[in-house]
Amino acid sequence: MREIAVFSGSAHPELAAEICEHLEVPLLPVRVTRFANDCLEVQLQANCRERDVYLIQPLAKPVQENLVELLLMIDAARGASAARTTVVMPHYAYARSDKKDAPRISIGGRLVADLLVAAGASRVLTMTLHSPQVHGFFSVPVDHLHALRELAAYFRRYDLSNTIVVSPDLGNAKEASHFARLLGVPVAAGAKQRFADDRVEITSIIGDVSDRDVIVLDDEIARGSTVVELLSKLADRGVRSVRVACTHGLFADGALGRIGGRPDVAEIVCTNTVPIAERSDKLTVLSIAPALAEAVRRIHDGESVSALFDAPIAAGSGG
Amino acid sequence: MREIAVFSGSAHPELAAEICEHLEVPLLPVRVTRFANDCLEVQLQANCRERDVYLIQPLAKPVQENLVELLLMIDAARGASAARTTVVMPHYAYARSDKKDAPRISIGGRLVADLLVAAGASRVLTMTLHSPQVHGFFSVPVDHLHALRELAAYFRRYDLSNTIVVSPDLGNAKEASHFARLLGVPVAAGAKQRFADDRVEITSIIGDVSDRDVIVLDDEIARGSTVVELLSKLADRGVRSVRVACTHGLFADGALGRIGGRPDVAEIVCTNTVPIAERSDKLTVLSIAPALAEAVRRIHDGESVSALFDAPIAAGSGG
Amino acid sequence: MREIAVFSGSAHPELAAEICEHLEVPLLPVRVTRFANDCLEVQLQANCRERDVYLIQPLAKPVQENLVELLLMIDAARGASAARTTVVMPHYAYARSDKKDAPRISIGGRLVADLLVAAGASRVLTMTLHSPQVHGFFSVPVDHLHALRELAAYFRRYDLSNTIVVSPDLGNAKEASHFARLLGVPVAAGAKQRFADDRVEITSIIGDVSDRDVIVLDDEIARGSTVVELLSKLADRGVRSVRVACTHGLFADGALGRIGGRPDVAEIVCTNTVPIAERSDKLTVLSIAPALAEAVRRIHDGESVSALFDAPIAAGSGG
Amino acid sequence: MREIAVFSGSAHPELAAEICEHLEVPLLPVRVTRFANDCLEVQLQANCRERDVYLIQPLAKPVQENLVELLLMIDAARGASAARTTVVMPHYAYARSDKKDAPRISIGGRLVADLLVAAGASRVLTMTLHSPQVHGFFSVPVDHLHALRELAAYFRRYDLSNTIVVSPDLGNAKEASHFARLLGVPVAAGAKQRFADDRVEITSIIGDVSDRDVIVLDDEIARGSTVVELLSKLADRGVRSVRVACTHGLFADGALGRIGGRPDVAEIVCTNTVPIAERSDKLTVLSIAPALAEAVRRIHDGESVSALFDAPIAAGSGG
Amino acid sequence: MREIAVFSGSAHPELAAEICEHLEVPLLPVRVTRFANDCLEVQLQANCRERDVYLIQPLAKPVQENLVELLLMIDAARGASAARTTVVMPHYAYARSDKKDAPRISIGGRLVADLLVAAGASRVLTMTLHSPQVHGFFSVPVDHLHALRELAAYFRRYDLSNTIVVSPDLGNAKEASHFARLLGVPVAAGAKQRFADDRVEITSIIGDVSDRDVIVLDDEIARGSTVVELLSKLADRGVRSVRVACTHGLFADGALGRIGGRPDVAEIVCTNTVPIAERSDKLTVLSIAPALAEAVRRIHDGESVSALFDAPIAAGSGG
Amino acid sequence: MREIAVFSGSAHPELAAEICEHLEVPLLPVRVTRFANDCLEVQLQANCRERDVYLIQPLAKPVQENLVELLLMIDAARGASAARTTVVMPHYAYARSDKKDAPRISIGGRLVADLLVAAGASRVLTMTLHSPQVHGFFSVPVDHLHALRELAAYFRRYDLSNTIVVSPDLGNAKEASHFARLLGVPVAAGAKQRFADDRVEITSIIGDVSDRDVIVLDDEIARGSTVVELLSKLADRGVRSVRVACTHGLFADGALGRIGGRPDVAEIVCTNTVPIAERSDKLTVLSIAPALAEAVRRIHDGESVSALFDAPIAAGSGG
Repeated sequence: MREIAVFSGSAHPELAAEICEHLEVPLLPVRVTRFANDCLEVQLQANCRERDVYLIQPLAKPVQENLVELLLMIDAARGASAARTTVVMPHYAYARSDKKDAPRISIGGRLVADLLVAAGASRVLTMTLHSPQVHGFFSVPVDHLHALRELAAYFRRYDLSNTIVVSPDLGNAKEASHFARLLGVPVAAGAKQRFADDRVEITSIIGDVSDRDVIVLDDEIARGSTVVELLSKLADRGVRSVRVACTHGLFADGALGRIGGRPDVAEIVCTNTVPIAERSDKLTVLSIAPALAEAVRRIHDGESVSALFDAPIAAGSGG
Repeated sequence: MREIAVFSGSAHPELAAEICEHLEVPLLPVRVTRFANDCLEVQLQANCRERDVYLIQPLAKPVQENLVELLLMIDAARGASAARTTVVMPHYAYARSDKKDAPRISIGGRLVADLLVAAGASRVLTMTLHSPQVHGFFSVPVDHLHALRELAAYFRRYDLSNTIVVSPDLGNAKEASHFARLLGVPVAAGAKQRFADDRVEITSIIGDVSDRDVIVLDDEIARGSTVVELLSKLADRGVRSVRVACTHGLFADGALGRIGGRPDVAEIVCTNTVPIAERSDKLTVLSIAPALAEAVRRIHDGESVSALFDAPIAAGSGG
Repeated sequence: MREIAVFSGSAHPELAAEICEHLEVPLLPVRVTRFANDCLEVQLQANCRERDVYLIQPLAKPVQENLVELLLMIDAARGASAARTTVVMPHYAYARSDKKDAPRISIGGRLVADLLVAAGASRVLTMTLHSPQVHGFFSVPVDHLHALRELAAYFRRYDLSNTIVVSPDLGNAKEASHFARLLGVPVAAGAKQRFADDRVEITSIIGDVSDRDVIVLDDEIARGSTVVELLSKLADRGVRSVRVACTHGLFADGALGRIGGRPDVAEIVCTNTVPIAERSDKLTVLSIAPALAEAVRRIHDGESVSALFDAPIAAGSGG
Repeated sequence: MREIAVFSGSAHPELAAEICEHLEVPLLPVRVTRFANDCLEVQLQANCRERDVYLIQPLAKPVQENLVELLLMIDAARGASAARTTVVMPHYAYARSDKKDAPRISIGGRLVADLLVAAGASRVLTMTLHSPQVHGFFSVPVDHLHALRELAAYFRRYDLSNTIVVSPDLGNAKEASHFARLLGVPVAAGAKQRFADDRVEITSIIGDVSDRDVIVLDDEIARGSTVVELLSKLADRGVRSVRVACTHGLFADGALGRIGGRPDVAEIVCTNTVPIAERSDKLTVLSIAPALAEAVRRIHDGESVSALFDAPIAAGSGG
Repeated sequence: MREIAVFSGSAHPELAAEICEHLEVPLLPVRVTRFANDCLEVQLQANCRERDVYLIQPLAKPVQENLVELLLMIDAARGASAARTTVVMPHYAYARSDKKDAPRISIGGRLVADLLVAAGASRVLTMTLHSPQVHGFFSVPVDHLHALRELAAYFRRYDLSNTIVVSPDLGNAKEASHFARLLGVPVAAGAKQRFADDRVEITSIIGDVSDRDVIVLDDEIARGSTVVELLSKLADRGVRSVRVACTHGLFADGALGRIGGRPDVAEIVCTNTVPIAERSDKLTVLSIAPALAEAVRRIHDGESVSALFDAPIAAGSGG
Repeated sequence: MREIAVFSGSAHPELAAEICEHLEVPLLPVRVTRFANDCLEVQLQANCRERDVYLIQPLAKPVQENLVELLLMIDAARGASAARTTVVMPHYAYARSDKKDAPRISIGGRLVADLLVAAGASRVLTMTLHSPQVHGFFSVPVDHLHALRELAAYFRRYDLSNTIVVSPDLGNAKEASHFARLLGVPVAAGAKQRFADDRVEITSIIGDVSDRDVIVLDDEIARGSTVVELLSKLADRGVRSVRVACTHGLFADGALGRIGGRPDVAEIVCTNTVPIAERSDKLTVLSIAPALAEAVRRIHDGESVSALFDAPIAAGSGG
């Protein structure tokens, strides 16, 4: 098979280094130059010709800088005759812009998918998309992983006999249910009620949580408003303990402090799909590098990726 | 402005005729031929040159026949030098295939969107898509209407002082809330719990429904299993009366009988986005022809479509 | 080389199984689901990643169902990272829609070719296209086989000393001439005269057929009107015996009975490019599975396909 | 409507001037420069912005020069913001390369169609394509005219009471039949028999021509070998007089002399789709400028083109 | 004609307001939202349907933010059914990335051109591209203006009897020569000599500058190193006075102070293609809003843009 | 790896043969047919299926014939299932049409690049493009070689102690500087001054050339007007000897005689990127076949091409 060549943009070089360690291949050097007029130039500093190229870049903050840098890398790989260019994008931030909920806006998740393809991406490897429909925004093959196995493996160190998994809303309930089954525990969910178009509130929790050890599971925590609201409701119900888990730990605007500062929260667990700038004693960061490395290896070797990673969603569509 | 030219495929000529009546334009003739080898040929039997062409065809049953017929019509309009070809597809059946919930399947909602564009569609006018993300599957402009105003106008004939709108699940809750506000009544929702990946059940109803006049609102009713399950739960809660409303009344496998046969169901209200084959004393079919005609008129005249139709969803994305 | 992976749609699984037997590879399983709203979902149930995928599906009746199913399979293979997707379409029914003989129709043969490519087809393997120009409708490589060698091999079992091949019209005369040379016999042809645009009639037979053993050769027989008309003319000329041969035995509207019921017809020979529903004592069905299997093998191994199969047409174009 | 702007390439400026006269619009100036390195530059020397641009250029000899010049003109119009660019190509020489009758050749008729679209052509107006399938090679709308009305109008000056139209082969028979009906006379056709793949000969004439005034009708005459062969056969049959008619009078390699030199040929009639270099006393050149001008006017005004020009072919496809 | 609709991104709203004033049309409102995950959402807050839309956004600093914002605006206009979307980009920063002067880099000027088209740009209006070849990177029509007329009009207020225009290098000499002719004065140029690949130095000035009033003309000043080097050489030659003029006044890293701080520099003149953050007593900023407004008006009205603005470059290419 | 297959068009078969000799692979046969209607047909006469195909064709005179022939070859290779088609185009004549220096012309360098891709080119190998920006006109990977190493190797046979390299203008100065460094000698350049838009003249020579052995270096010599002008200036400066070197020796309109006829010119050295028709005692033609062969070998084997050939231009862009 064609040789593998792995490069990292500026967004998350630590993750890239870790993935390469697991793959036992070198992380190849990249030179990024910013000109006086603020334009970027990116040079892939190793031969790409007929190589199976992987470009690792989550759309972490600063998103626009990282996106344009990624587009320049993809185009450079194409121009340098890469046999195939796989974008490894563990966090696809624009996936949240997935519908037209106001007139005359762009559906950013579709636009950015088209830009990646226009720049020359052959395929995409990503993790925990905000909604599963975003997969359909791409016109190239997508491998869509979930971090539930990693999170579950971590939580198995605890006594789970009294544990329940709680999803902040019903939208995330399929994943929460899958996660609960991996742990062998029951599942509950907050139910948001919409009082007006611009006011949504968690009004009830479906499932009995009182006196339970709760693991709150969400896909991402940015400002964390929903999680904080859920934590209040859980406190009202008299839960025994609370741990918070998510895939994408964005922690914007002091979210880590706001959640970690609550005495009822014992631990916050997230993965390193994006670099975690803030730190907290209560924060545990799991690495998804082994999972991504294994997916890269399988993509490179032509082995099934879906066979490895249990799809958390299995109900039939269209039904 | 360029002249308008409206044609209908075989799927729903009655709706097309009604739209044309409202537009005060003739429904132009189409000749469909089936050859001995089962291939179709469609002839648009009026001049399309530099016209603003509208092709009316919901993806009703038989879906594959209607889809291929539509693709042949679109290509014929393109080849005949139409200035613009708008596909008026009040029911986009393949919208339900919106995610990859099993490996090695097609995301049909994206594929069919691409096929329509490959055949030459300039734009699409559709109604009540299964999920709002499907809008992002199209690479051409989409006008996405909702039938809530039509349904609300109808229900205002009743005494609504004791009424509550109930959504079968939380996925549809945004629309239900919008509908309730149009009627000035409260809203409730069934909450499905997922016990295993293949077993989903409505386990609770969020909001107080006892002794209320309930309007159940869903986007479409095909086999109607979810609605039937909700009706049982509502009966358990002691509701005063039940009416069922939806946009797309597909009524497959005897669904109309199964729902209408229940003594606690006073009425079933749907629209005519697809032809309604079965009939029932309890069934009321509202026409969305006036709404589609007004949208066509505005598209033709370059007026805002979103200005007319309240968008039922207004919360910010990406947040 | 990349591994081969062969799947069959619903159109003709028997042919697919036979091809796989000759290739000594398994026919991989496919799951087809029809949802309550009449939409199809197709799952390729074996790993396609970096495989050389072959999807076997003639556009047999029901053509529209089989076409949409095929498009879903192609898209599924693309999304599942197939290295290459070859559509094996032994009968391309829409090839007959190859010109614009009325205003405002689609040239279906071109449209469907574009749809196959839009869905992700890398190449096409087909058999006996209605006109050789249809090859030019495809923007991907096409391998176009003919069944003449198979038909000739069969007819060599007979005493051919008094035999003549007759083409029903001059359009098919090149193939008939090639077929006659394979058998070492002379050739004749019916000549259609056009009295009005809508009335065409075989008015003469060019070549002397009286007292001969005739093999009538056509590309396909659907309703069979032309062949029946030719048979009458041949009877008038006092031929000694008649056998009828064709590649695509569609036999619509009782054609098999109409032809086979004539006492002057000794035998009808066709191939299995489409499933033959009707049966008749006089019908012999030859298998083109060995030829298709050999073509697949050569495509997979990068060997010349044209080297194997004598091209029946060799005169220079443009001349 | 947008203003019209008509330009001519180097291939046939006389025809362009004549078309413009009929349209009562000026023929706008074009500057063609050939650089020292043999590259061409074409400047459209009038404003094209938002104009409805027509570029007149048959693919006459030297074909490659005229083709590249045309591609440069199309691209110039696109870059100059033409609203629409219609290629008026009365003779599409590459239409003869319409099938793959040898391995590893290009189907030139498809390739050149794709090149025209890649350069920016919005639509094509052409005349008497070699085979009707070539229409399907274009991915943009094509208006395909025939010169039969013009030819028929000319021949009505003669006493046609004893006249018969003869097509050199059956391939052209549909047009010949249409032409005969326009003249109210019968039709006959030469039948070519294929003895080997590389030897084709007219072996019979279907229809009674003896003692008749014959009009031989073909689509184009290049070397004229087929026509000459037919003339011999006609002489054998004792025809009374012969006139030869065609749309495209290419007359290569002394064809005009070879045909006109025969004492039995009274007249040769062709149109001016290409410039006629050679002259002969027996040659009559009809102008198709009025027909092309009327088609351009209708395209510009959005009127039906098919309504004006009787389609000579009306039988159903796919049948 | 279709109505005009003008929007501005965040890059330079003052310029947009001024252009709209000249056009006597309102600058329509735009809402830009930055989500917690750093993604942008842009809403065009006025009807775009069938409008002739203009989006004003120079690629000023921060370039990546402004670029992605622009792409979102373009896509929003397309999705909102704009009839045509013209990107008004007075400064195209990525034009400097116009060649592959190192292996495995992107040619950013081409990539960004492709991204704009992928997002839906119909055409581009830009000013003083770094090299004229960049025009060829766009697959949509480009109107490329120059600011020389504006600069010349300003300098005519001075006594020009002893003036000479000096270009810092020969690359910009064509524009300098054109500018000198507009002023009726002679021209000179610095000549850079390349000692090594990474060391370039102005070694001579072609033309006699001693005792002259010099106007230094460059296309853009970012760090201004070349200009500063030229100023030293000019001082060595004993020039009488120096004024510095350019189109794009980027003034990065204190360039304005570095140039304006020199006592021999009397004035620095630039235009407002980008917002000028720094100020200096010696700085004069001319507005190119009138020129852009006139170009927009002509594009909208379908008048020739090249007729208005003298092209500064008229020598034949390819020669 | 896939097998290599090398074909040559009509433009320069000698060069192709030489390249193949160096590669130790056969030059595969091609059949070119010109039909009576002046259309071309090209047959690649060896199996291309899954081969790594190279088509050698410089755009030498007659450019249009060679271009269309090349497009037909590319399309034939695609249709014949080539795995990859690399166009080896040592002279890209249309590269000189690289900007829009007059309104309503095509930028031919971009158009022809698009045509090559539309016909199916996977990649391009070319030599000494007129301007480095032309690289950005291609949407497929380009390997851009320079002939400086070949020219330098040749000139090392001379005593270079008193030698200076002179570029006719500053545009070519980067390459001249690189060439001078390869030889270890200084560099000078003519400086063209533009008096009016249509009158450019070499007015000075930057660097001291008197009493030196001069090597004039240009990229191509067509009519040679600039070189002749430079030679006069050099004579005025009292140079000791002159040799003229270039990559592309087009020598149009007697240029070879005009330059070689000067007594002060000792030698003219060019390469064989195009066939050299004229001969002269003073002319030395170097072969770039070894360089092209090595590049082809590296492309085929997936080795770095830039690593082999020193890029003559290394200064940063954008800066």
